Amino acid sequence: MHDEWLELIHSLAEETSTRIILLVLDGLGDAPFHEGKTALESAKTPNLDLLASRAELGLGYPVGPGITPGSGPGHLALFGYDPIHIQVGRGVLSALGVDFELQAYDIAARGNFCTVDPETGFVIDRRAGRIPTDLCIQLTGRLQEHFTRTFPDVQIFVLPEKEHRFALIIRSEGFDPSITDTDPQVTGQPPLRPRALKPEAEEFARFIDALIEETRKVLADQQQANMILLRGFDRKPDIPLFPDVYKLKPIGIAEYPMYRGLARLVGIPTVSYSGKISEAFKIVQQEWENYTFFFVHVKKTDSYGEDGNFTGKVKILEEVDHYLPMLMGLKPDVLVITGDHSTPALIKAHSWHAVPYLLSSPYTRYVSDLKFTERDCARGTLGRFPMRYSMSFAMAHAGKLKKFGA
Amino acid sequence: MHDEWLELIHSLAEETSTRIILLVLDGLGDAPFHEGKTALESAKTPNLDLLASRAELGLGYPVGPGITPGSGPGHLALFGYDPIHIQVGRGVLSALGVDFELQAYDIAARGNFCTVDPETGFVIDRRAGRIPTDLCIQLTGRLQEHFTRTFPDVQIFVLPEKEHRFALIIRSEGFDPSITDTDPQVTGQPPLRPRALKPEAEEFARFIDALIEETRKVLADQQQANMILLRGFDRKPDIPLFPDVYKLKPIGIAEYPMYRGLARLVGIPTVSYSGKISEAFKIVQQEWENYTFFFVHVKKTDSYGEDGNFTGKVKILEEVDHYLPMLMGLKPDVLVITGDHSTPALIKAHSWHAVPYLLSSPYTRYVSDLKFTERDCARGTLGRFPMRYSMSFAMAHAGKLKKFGA
Repeated sequence: MHDEWLELIHSLAEETSTRIILLVLDGLGDAPFHEGKTALESAKTPNLDLLASRAELGLGYPVGPGITPGSGPGHLALFGYDPIHIQVGRGVLSALGVDFELQAYDIAARGNFCTVDPETGFVIDRRAGRIPTDLCIQLTGRLQEHFTRTFPDVQIFVLPEKEHRFALIIRSEGFDPSITDTDPQVTGQPPLRPRALKPEAEEFARFIDALIEETRKVLADQQQANMILLRGFDRKPDIPLFPDVYKLKPIGIAEYPMYRGLARLVGIPTVSYSGKISEAFKIVQQEWENYTFFFVHVKKTDSYGEDGNFTGKVKILEEVDHYLPMLMGLKPDVLVITGDHSTPALIKAHSWHAVPYLLSSPYTRYVSDLKFTERDCARGTLGRFPMRYSMSFAMAHAGKLKKFGA
Repeated sequence: MHDEWLELIHSLAEETSTRIILLVLDGLGDAPFHEGKTALESAKTPNLDLLASRAELGLGYPVGPGITPGSGPGHLALFGYDPIHIQVGRGVLSALGVDFELQAYDIAARGNFCTVDPETGFVIDRRAGRIPTDLCIQLTGRLQEHFTRTFPDVQIFVLPEKEHRFALIIRSEGFDPSITDTDPQVTGQPPLRPRALKPEAEEFARFIDALIEETRKVLADQQQANMILLRGFDRKPDIPLFPDVYKLKPIGIAEYPMYRGLARLVGIPTVSYSGKISEAFKIVQQEWENYTFFFVHVKKTDSYGEDGNFTGKVKILEEVDHYLPMLMGLKPDVLVITGDHSTPALIKAHSWHAVPYLLSSPYTRYVSDLKFTERDCARGTLGRFPMRYSMSFAMAHAGKLKKFGA
């Protein structure tokens, strides 16, 4: 993938000892307003307010105006990539989500257990009645065993996710992943047969066809989960690696596997934490001398947004604020606080609204009466900007970008 | 034409029953200010003010910063197209302007009657003293008749516009329109002979040369309008159609033929109205159940701007405001009010100034103390943005765009 902007940044990047913290509050940003206020406006956040009064504020578009980002594009933008041109397939995200370490030649797909009518073979329920995760673990185990025995020449991984979901990984250099989904996306039709989108992929389509036939046998004794649907066959994208592009020594700290996976996808090594904010910030403290870039991911802002739990979202913001001095005390050269997309509690889903953005450094142009809210970010010095520029702003404020041209 | 952004929007667009109104006040937006105020600031607009206090406000650039848009690019941007890369030739605009239904292979040109010195053949007046429209109708009729007789193998249309202006349409699949204008743009030179810009266009250049020779004969008895100048030979552009791109069922409601023509150019069917605001809004009410996108075009804001009639512009804004409850009462999922460009009364022409923009929906981030004025739009939540994003904003707020990426 040719990306002129990343090449420019790379050509200007210098390795220095300055340190950047990128604190991602997943799903940050509200709309419409709860009694006229957003979660950021309702939360008591003295530390964020203090930072905001000396910070550059703005609103970032992860993908573009009006576009609701998934977590993949949202994070790629935060890492400075062009999220429209680097697409992470659904299968790859699934594999990342179960903490699977994808190799360059692995082909991943997202799987659903589903219910088909035993007579007609038509899909009755695309999610097999959302079978319990226990059963998912059991069935993926049976498939794993059967596949290993039946296809000894190809390494196959069947990894349970939650309820009816699983990830399927095929490790083989020879295959081309350009085949169609088997998920018809509607009921009342049979599962689709995989179709090669180019001649090189025909062998892989035949292989998946055979694998599905074997699956049918293995699941024949099931009432609900008697078939599978596969979609999003893909390899992991070929992305210029984050440490190389920026000449940074990065670490990612995230509770959920998918966000660690997204970080590792661009070459950021990761560690896990329990979800307690103080624990994540403590890791930053402990690792302060070892890295120059800290990606810290907080999931709960998004979870509460998705649940429509406005009060929960307010509380988690207040918790982040409470522990923020743990990061501020480290005197990072740059502290960025933002989100990967907005998840308004009243919409209960990701949304297209631009994401509040705060950059704190000794070199900011600040407007001292502004706070860290959607409305105040709209009045900030950075205006609205494509979120991928967050990285160049951060690099610049950290003194890590040379002058361009003489 | 390859347009990655439109392709992205198309891939995310979903057909739903939600409804969008795009109310275009042509030439909206003033500068410099009349006694310190713009028309929007001077007009009493309680309904616009009410909408603005709960709307996303911003300033749109139809083409780009500093660029004064023509009506073509201005509207293409409002419909979500890239107005720099989709260009509508002058001839095509002329044909649209006389309500001519252009076919895919028609080549259209804009014509002027002009005066040439009978001795030297040099152009004396490029507009033939702005002959009366009656004479224009008479002369185009004579040309039409003569061409039909003289060139029986090619279908030719000569359509009068106002004063010295006419549209010429050549219906023939075989011709290539890539030829130069015959209008020298200055006096004291002879009309130029059409020149092929590529070998395939040589036949067409010869044809137009012959047609001009015939014209000279037909007009030989005229004192003023004794010759013609032709420019902007072009076919209508090959544009992805609006209903397909957005999966919308659109209708365009406009008084002037050119704006109906611009809508039809992108596949929006149109109806006419008398120019009375209430009549246009009534059509929206009547057709409410039949469409999901309503483009309503009000011309007079621009006409008063072009005439330098500041008071007229204020009045028409107040009239729009007066009837606005007719649209608000329909409870559209999204109501966008904006212009295709600015036409400041004190400049008496289109200008480059960014265009005030208001988007009303239940999902807006609003700043409640703002009104719908140029200055307040500069403080709105949307900031400044390329006007083509109006469509993705509207689609998003109407719940018509899926999430991008997982």
